[in-house]
Amino acid sequence: MPHTIRNIAKALNAEAEGNLDLMVGATAEPAAAGPEDLALAVDPKYADGLAQGAARAAMLWQGADWRALGLEAAIFAPRGRLSMAHLSRMMDPGPAIAPGIHPMTVIDPTATIGDGAAIGPFVTIGAGARIGANARIAPHASIAEGAVIGDDALILNGARIGARVVIGDRFIAHPGATIGGDGFSFVTPEVSGVEEIRHTLGLREEIRKQEWVRIHSLGSVSIGDDVEVGVNSCIDRGTIRDTKVGNGTKIDNLVHLGHNVQVGRDCLLCAMVGVAGSVKIGDRVVLAGQVGVSDNIFIGDDVIAGGGTKILSNAPAGRVLLGYPAVKMDLHIEMQKALRRLPRLAKTVAELQKTVAKDG
Amino acid sequence: MPHTIRNIAKALNAEAEGNLDLMVGATAEPAAAGPEDLALAVDPKYADGLAQGAARAAMLWQGADWRALGLEAAIFAPRGRLSMAHLSRMMDPGPAIAPGIHPMTVIDPTATIGDGAAIGPFVTIGAGARIGANARIAPHASIAEGAVIGDDALILNGARIGARVVIGDRFIAHPGATIGGDGFSFVTPEVSGVEEIRHTLGLREEIRKQEWVRIHSLGSVSIGDDVEVGVNSCIDRGTIRDTKVGNGTKIDNLVHLGHNVQVGRDCLLCAMVGVAGSVKIGDRVVLAGQVGVSDNIFIGDDVIAGGGTKILSNAPAGRVLLGYPAVKMDLHIEMQKALRRLPRLAKTVAELQKTVAKDG
Amino acid sequence: MPHTIRNIAKALNAEAEGNLDLMVGATAEPAAAGPEDLALAVDPKYADGLAQGAARAAMLWQGADWRALGLEAAIFAPRGRLSMAHLSRMMDPGPAIAPGIHPMTVIDPTATIGDGAAIGPFVTIGAGARIGANARIAPHASIAEGAVIGDDALILNGARIGARVVIGDRFIAHPGATIGGDGFSFVTPEVSGVEEIRHTLGLREEIRKQEWVRIHSLGSVSIGDDVEVGVNSCIDRGTIRDTKVGNGTKIDNLVHLGHNVQVGRDCLLCAMVGVAGSVKIGDRVVLAGQVGVSDNIFIGDDVIAGGGTKILSNAPAGRVLLGYPAVKMDLHIEMQKALRRLPRLAKTVAELQKTVAKDG
Repeated sequence: MPHTIRNIAKALNAEAEGNLDLMVGATAEPAAAGPEDLALAVDPKYADGLAQGAARAAMLWQGADWRALGLEAAIFAPRGRLSMAHLSRMMDPGPAIAPGIHPMTVIDPTATIGDGAAIGPFVTIGAGARIGANARIAPHASIAEGAVIGDDALILNGARIGARVVIGDRFIAHPGATIGGDGFSFVTPEVSGVEEIRHTLGLREEIRKQEWVRIHSLGSVSIGDDVEVGVNSCIDRGTIRDTKVGNGTKIDNLVHLGHNVQVGRDCLLCAMVGVAGSVKIGDRVVLAGQVGVSDNIFIGDDVIAGGGTKILSNAPAGRVLLGYPAVKMDLHIEMQKALRRLPRLAKTVAELQKTVAKDG
Repeated sequence: MPHTIRNIAKALNAEAEGNLDLMVGATAEPAAAGPEDLALAVDPKYADGLAQGAARAAMLWQGADWRALGLEAAIFAPRGRLSMAHLSRMMDPGPAIAPGIHPMTVIDPTATIGDGAAIGPFVTIGAGARIGANARIAPHASIAEGAVIGDDALILNGARIGARVVIGDRFIAHPGATIGGDGFSFVTPEVSGVEEIRHTLGLREEIRKQEWVRIHSLGSVSIGDDVEVGVNSCIDRGTIRDTKVGNGTKIDNLVHLGHNVQVGRDCLLCAMVGVAGSVKIGDRVVLAGQVGVSDNIFIGDDVIAGGGTKILSNAPAGRVLLGYPAVKMDLHIEMQKALRRLPRLAKTVAELQKTVAKDG
Repeated sequence: MPHTIRNIAKALNAEAEGNLDLMVGATAEPAAAGPEDLALAVDPKYADGLAQGAARAAMLWQGADWRALGLEAAIFAPRGRLSMAHLSRMMDPGPAIAPGIHPMTVIDPTATIGDGAAIGPFVTIGAGARIGANARIAPHASIAEGAVIGDDALILNGARIGARVVIGDRFIAHPGATIGGDGFSFVTPEVSGVEEIRHTLGLREEIRKQEWVRIHSLGSVSIGDDVEVGVNSCIDRGTIRDTKVGNGTKIDNLVHLGHNVQVGRDCLLCAMVGVAGSVKIGDRVVLAGQVGVSDNIFIGDDVIAGGGTKILSNAPAGRVLLGYPAVKMDLHIEMQKALRRLPRLAKTVAELQKTVAKDG
């Protein structure tokens, strides 16, 4: 989708100089940019790259001399990565889904779909489902009976929205994301009297005969506005009440949220985060990749956990965590430093013992 | 699906009092319950919640005074969470899949499907597949050639059952679950003579030129009765023999079982558990979230591993494990306690050294 | 697919003896083999198994006496597991996808598909996509607009190839594999002046009001020849440039590669590996199951990381890593040994302190 330099600068609320009518069709790294591209060179370190590439226009650092860089036009990035966010939104063609509803879909006549929908082939929408305006739904997505989705939704390939799930506006479900799977909840029947008599060999014996009886999830999932859920991620329903995700929370690929989990607003849950059942997570929490959270605990507001952290107990608001089991990040670093020196420390102690024994 | 209090009590083999003809349509937490709901208040701590909500009927703790709680009818939970399991099964409407076979399916004429099937749109079933009675198969599921599935199966959206996979009765495949992917098994061709001569700089040099040749999986997967597999989980085929999962084993979301894995009966494998190739797991084993198991080892009966445990060597029956690498849970706790004090211990030793040196 | 012993031996470049016209239809473990199977017994330890089974032909270890083992024919494995690789390729029937294009597909008229294609039902192929010769595409796969895929591709059930993704020859996408999801990249707008004034209580306060603005991924994914991607794994697009995977790299199930990641040639990324954004991985790197790699670091050529390793900083070429945080494998083993003895060491130090205090 080509734009003039003028229009891009206007959209970004940025200054521009040179030939403002020049059209660019895509963005590129400076060295790889062709004559139709807008090179992204928001730092002087990219100047060499511009010389190697063929860009005629670039987004440049403040104060750059675009003429000396051999350009015909330049936009000056007002706020670094935030400008990049706005520019990326403008230049993203998005998935190609033809306007209207593809004939090879199965949409229940009682479902309601807002104006401006683009629904691809092989999509299913169940009875009583309600989808807001401007929905874009890619091939193989399924939206089950009674689900409610707000305006401007983007439901990508093979994503699955379960029965009675309720979702706000501007929702994005990446391919294979599954909202509303059944919770993983089982009980063992009580140990029978006959069995109890036989059990005298210790605690573990008690669980010998164990058969799992399923607790079905009767709750659903409710999700706020401006949420996105990554590729093949899954959010399970609640047992009685709904599993919940607050406004503005972003969820990456292959994330698991168990039944009854409550996630607050504006959190970032990075790839492969696993949150066990009935955990309560506050607002603005950031969990890095492969973090795990044990069931039935709480994570306070503004907690940040580094990659691979396993949080096994409650985390107070504002805590910065790392490690398995999770401890405060500074303590973790200190512990690991000491652990690396531990083999040497053990030798020192052994020598001390000898010295003291000899002296004694 | 509304039920009378009488019918629910009868199904749960529970006592009931009050207006036994009262109808309830859903379950709810006490404070959130409306007049059509059955409030779940199996512990006196929920009494306040009942007062806030509008329930006319509730499932109550033994001995509760339902009249004083303002209710018209009550069921007395005989066995806590087990009653909840039975109740949840009764109240779960399940996925809406119309009886019969949807016309927009592709089912091979040589496939056989038992009585009572409900098969949704965009399902594919391959040649020679055999599916038992009362199967419910949701949109976008695929069942490949020669697969055999028992009675009362529930195959949810986009689940994929591979060729020649054999599964028992009452199987549940959650959305995106994939049974029978190819195992991840590769070999490197032997190092050539010329290369061998060049290799004199150490062990790592030997693997310089490494190209992976694929070992195709010729085995399949066989799964017992009463097994369920969670959202987007995957169970790979065996190389020669089948990968196996025993009766009654429950598998959560995003779990991976590699080729040739053998899992016993009545195990629980929680979300994001990863089991590498050729592992043998006994009966009643419980692996909590994000546990990993190295290839070619065994996990004895009744082993329990806490969240995030990485099991790198054989685990004898009955062992309770935690940590990375996995150790007995009590040892892990002791080790972590000592590790937190390690920086201080190092200081103590340094001071001791000084004292002893001065004394000596 | 039955073969004569002669043909199998020829294909494997192996010696064979006995009735070379005997037909075998499948491979089996020695004890489980029937009369139509080729038993695999490449080590003398399998001799007993052969006696239990009913095989008439077997692949045997060099020098085995096939007549004494009661067989009618034998193939002698020249190179162990490499022979197994070739044999498995020969005996694998592969997925049953009928030749030609199934009528229940939605293929854009501007897409081009090479000769010899077999495309199953409910597949979608977008505008301008180009697919090479002999493609086999299973049900529910989707290939988006502008994607380019080489010859001999195998795209399995529900796999999703995103817009403008470029892939080489002999690509395998296992079920649910998703190439070209959007990267997980967000920025927070600058803190406003009014808010800045309010912020005086410490570093963490600064991030109080945090709202995530999306950076769309404008790059794509480019993948070399002979790559395979496992069940439900995902590779995200790059922000500006492409995310890249080199020739011959094999990726297992439930793996995540973040935006801008660069993976070299002939790597093995085992199940549940997670690689955060902008990581650069060299050639012949092996990451075992559940390994995690922090964003923006590099992993040199020939690095090997054991199961569950969390790599938080750059790893030089040839390094063998284990643990969280990752350290050299030998150091990790030494550290863990010392850690197990740490509780005892702490007691020793306490006693030493007493002795020294008494002596002093």
